[in-house]
Amino acid sequence: MGRKEDALEYHRRGRKGKLEVVPTKPLVSQMDLSLAYTPGVAEPCLEIAEDPDKSWEYTARANLVAVISNGTAVLGLGDIGPAASKPVMEGKACLFKKFADIDVFDLEINEKRVDQFCDIVAALEPTFGGINLEDIAAPECFEIEAKLRERMRIPVFHDDQHGTAIISGAGLLNAAELANKQLADIKLVVSGAGAAAIACVEFFIQLGITRSNVTMVDSKGVVHVDRTDINKQKRSLAVPDDGRRTLADAMRGADMFMGVSVANTVTPEMLTTMAERPIVFALANPDPEISYPAAIAARPDAIVATGRSDFPNQVNNVLGFPYIFRGALDCRATTISEEMKLAAARALSELTREPVPESVIMAYGGNALKMGPDYFIPKPFDPRVLWWVAPAVAQAAMESGVARIKFDIDEYREKLMSKGSNAAYSIMRTITKEAQRDPKRIVFPHAASARLLHAIQQIVDEEIAKPILLGRTDEIEKLCNELSLDLISRVDIIDPRSDHNATYSERLYEMRQRKGLTQEAARALIQKSDYYGAIMVDRGDADGMVTGLRLNYPETVRPVLEIFGLSPGAKVAVGMYMMVLQNSVKFFGDTVFNIFPDAEM
Amino acid sequence: MGRKEDALEYHRRGRKGKLEVVPTKPLVSQMDLSLAYTPGVAEPCLEIAEDPDKSWEYTARANLVAVISNGTAVLGLGDIGPAASKPVMEGKACLFKKFADIDVFDLEINEKRVDQFCDIVAALEPTFGGINLEDIAAPECFEIEAKLRERMRIPVFHDDQHGTAIISGAGLLNAAELANKQLADIKLVVSGAGAAAIACVEFFIQLGITRSNVTMVDSKGVVHVDRTDINKQKRSLAVPDDGRRTLADAMRGADMFMGVSVANTVTPEMLTTMAERPIVFALANPDPEISYPAAIAARPDAIVATGRSDFPNQVNNVLGFPYIFRGALDCRATTISEEMKLAAARALSELTREPVPESVIMAYGGNALKMGPDYFIPKPFDPRVLWWVAPAVAQAAMESGVARIKFDIDEYREKLMSKGSNAAYSIMRTITKEAQRDPKRIVFPHAASARLLHAIQQIVDEEIAKPILLGRTDEIEKLCNELSLDLISRVDIIDPRSDHNATYSERLYEMRQRKGLTQEAARALIQKSDYYGAIMVDRGDADGMVTGLRLNYPETVRPVLEIFGLSPGAKVAVGMYMMVLQNSVKFFGDTVFNIFPDAEM
Repeated sequence: MGRKEDALEYHRRGRKGKLEVVPTKPLVSQMDLSLAYTPGVAEPCLEIAEDPDKSWEYTARANLVAVISNGTAVLGLGDIGPAASKPVMEGKACLFKKFADIDVFDLEINEKRVDQFCDIVAALEPTFGGINLEDIAAPECFEIEAKLRERMRIPVFHDDQHGTAIISGAGLLNAAELANKQLADIKLVVSGAGAAAIACVEFFIQLGITRSNVTMVDSKGVVHVDRTDINKQKRSLAVPDDGRRTLADAMRGADMFMGVSVANTVTPEMLTTMAERPIVFALANPDPEISYPAAIAARPDAIVATGRSDFPNQVNNVLGFPYIFRGALDCRATTISEEMKLAAARALSELTREPVPESVIMAYGGNALKMGPDYFIPKPFDPRVLWWVAPAVAQAAMESGVARIKFDIDEYREKLMSKGSNAAYSIMRTITKEAQRDPKRIVFPHAASARLLHAIQQIVDEEIAKPILLGRTDEIEKLCNELSLDLISRVDIIDPRSDHNATYSERLYEMRQRKGLTQEAARALIQKSDYYGAIMVDRGDADGMVTGLRLNYPETVRPVLEIFGLSPGAKVAVGMYMMVLQNSVKFFGDTVFNIFPDAEM
Repeated sequence: MGRKEDALEYHRRGRKGKLEVVPTKPLVSQMDLSLAYTPGVAEPCLEIAEDPDKSWEYTARANLVAVISNGTAVLGLGDIGPAASKPVMEGKACLFKKFADIDVFDLEINEKRVDQFCDIVAALEPTFGGINLEDIAAPECFEIEAKLRERMRIPVFHDDQHGTAIISGAGLLNAAELANKQLADIKLVVSGAGAAAIACVEFFIQLGITRSNVTMVDSKGVVHVDRTDINKQKRSLAVPDDGRRTLADAMRGADMFMGVSVANTVTPEMLTTMAERPIVFALANPDPEISYPAAIAARPDAIVATGRSDFPNQVNNVLGFPYIFRGALDCRATTISEEMKLAAARALSELTREPVPESVIMAYGGNALKMGPDYFIPKPFDPRVLWWVAPAVAQAAMESGVARIKFDIDEYREKLMSKGSNAAYSIMRTITKEAQRDPKRIVFPHAASARLLHAIQQIVDEEIAKPILLGRTDEIEKLCNELSLDLISRVDIIDPRSDHNATYSERLYEMRQRKGLTQEAARALIQKSDYYGAIMVDRGDADGMVTGLRLNYPETVRPVLEIFGLSPGAKVAVGMYMMVLQNSVKFFGDTVFNIFPDAEM
């Protein structure tokens, strides 16, 4: 099957499409039904009739966003109509759910006229907590959003405009720092003059870009004030006619190129005429104005972002809309204020400077992610985006006076961290914090392992423990160099084979002589790093040992049982697993050692 | 907590409200996302753009109904507005899902004007497979439904009108038969002249009631042609002025009373003036025009239905809308034609004449359900309604030319039977059918048990096996009488204590003498019905034994193991459970006998 057939099959198989609506409350007994429907349902109805704000308490509205399109500008496909836009809107609903646990009704509306379209959406206000407009053609989209924002007391957000603006705005903040440019001084050239392009420019200006430093170029060339073929939105960004006509004219000496247009409009030659350390955001989808490798080849000093997932610095809207709505819904915002959008961009910018968790690094191929030209926008699958962006948005909503309710932002952040699939992260964080209060000396046998060294790097970076590595020093050092790990000077490395620690072998002999271990055999055995590590712990030279990555269970466990034995009264050793589920944590014992456990165990 | 607090808590706790929207397709990897969203999603979009009917293949529309209200006539609460109607609409969505696995977006629309309301709903056509209008005030609801049916190419159904009409229509067909009345001759008095009342009358006329035999009574009295205060819909049902003014006037000599009005409008005296074997449908909610017990007390010969779940013959809309939409969606109907509504009513009427499965009887208190004055409308929790009504509706859609696709109705019915929670029913049905082809002689030890005798009654009724009951004959006969079971003449009953079957005790002695059983002990042991039953099977006097209801496992199993032993080569006996899951059937062995199974077992 090719990609086309895969995609069709994905949508067709099983339950058609991509969404299902399920009851969240028990519906088993007649009693349940009498609460969910008549007669019990009358109670919340009456409460809401008395106080409409109670609808956030008693209905799904509190977590419900409408993704609404009329299908006039779907992806790069143009005006394919509302029915044909439904797969995209369902997909958007999936992203809302996956990234922020927001429920979405996707509504495809057969209406192109601005006022009639607005009447329809405005009338739906009692149903929803927010409205995400999607894939509506310019310039109608500007008018529609403006009118609905005016009419409605719930957030209305046209993601095609503001989503791209917010994510690339976050990128701009970091790129300017990396290029050592002041926002107010940046000369910006924009290719494209559609909804997203105009929204980006307006947002960049709010972030600090100077309006007069912006030159916009559409398919007919530089947008200047003497042109008669430009709409209201373009006119507001038109420059005085200084003779520049083409994109190439405009780019000469520019500090930043921002493309929200079509593939391959920028040549390597154009880049070579730009200022030092140029910022290049080539966001045309799926093929950018200039490819990432071509841009870097033409200007190795460039700071480059694209819309593609296969190169660094992807400007992906999914970094924005789920979390912006999460924050807005949770404080029952009446709108998405400018302050909330700026807060989202700044939160994304700041998150990029934080150390990146190993889980994110692993999900993106295992290469280190650290703020720099290769990483100045967070990764879409980074779970932390939820608790960085949503609280920032909620706080801005409260501070800008558009939140219906207020709450403690730190508590809110903690709640987001421990929600659903983040529960494991939250528990790990609790354990990590506890460990950081008093880092222990932990010995790691068989340390010459790439996987283990990556983990130890994180332990050292986060000061969770003081690692002691056992293994061949030269091997460990070589691996650290190959993996660009900064470990050697920050950990102890001991090679049990060359260390000849007489105290340790004597202790091992003393413990095992009754089992027939000779002194000579003990001297040989102590060179095995599992025995060496266990004796270190026994002697108090380490507080604990983490092992098992390289050996099977019996081999891993034998030295431990031989050195430490069982507690007085214990009959068997047991293994234990911790399972972090959506709403609970379970510990399973005896899934490791004892094949036939009995109730007593 | 009182019922009010229970209901509020039910709606407030956990996820607010009652619905959640979840993705149905995997969304784990970058690959999944590239199918669900860009770039893969472009493929179904393009297919639909080319052929709009493909939206039933590639989107959730195929199973998606909008439940739409403007909150102008919510339950008995009146015009409480769209926001306050949301709990009811979410509840309706839950019923659609629970009873027919239909996904629902509930939309509460802030618009009372007919034309504007219609513009909104009509524009939503590309989103949905059907529209269920709900709780919209009369007379606007008539105009709204009529206009939308005209404008839209998907089913539009105002449940308040047609739901009640269809269910009570089914009841009417059966009640007329029980009362031995011809539909065309029935003199019908209707109390109430709202949307539901008028829809019921129109539907009854289609079923065979004569228009001129209908007298409608509203809050001002009999609706006659000389009244000037009646709307178009009432006028179409107004009678010539014959001097009757009150409900009491109208009911004198009437064959049927149909109430869709308010509580306690009918007195016992009024009922006494009605014709022989009067049909009384008192459907006001929650309190009927006259209560079920009061109606029966006044007229023991009456055939009575109400809207209440705590008395026989509940007219509950949930018997209609889930299955009508199920059938309509599955054949992609462009509308709900009159033929489809009639088919639904007739299917419900016919289903009532079928033997009722034990599971349904048990869910409703264990009393026998058999077509008669106490049971002439199916029960809401009867799972068979799905595969009786939906196929009838789909077939009528195909025959009346409103189905976009056609399929084999028998195959469709089989598919519905085996769907989701019906899988267990479907499997039982397969096994039952197989057993019925050649009913075996099955011996039941300890048969003097109410639970067991109920089950045996069903076995006998459905001719699944030829039961042989072991136990005290007098006890079994007494229980059968108490439980009104018709068994005694249809099964064999043997009392092992009085039977003194020498062959059996001899055989038992022969088998167990090497284990130390004496002849005398064998004669005593054979009087225990477990041993007696096992020996019957051993001797070929029965084909199988079903036991275990009264004893614990060891006691149940011992006689079987002693008489039959294990197959040659078998080391242990194992228990087996069959688990019927949503999409698979699993057999679990060794959950009964062997506490420490190993891999070999």
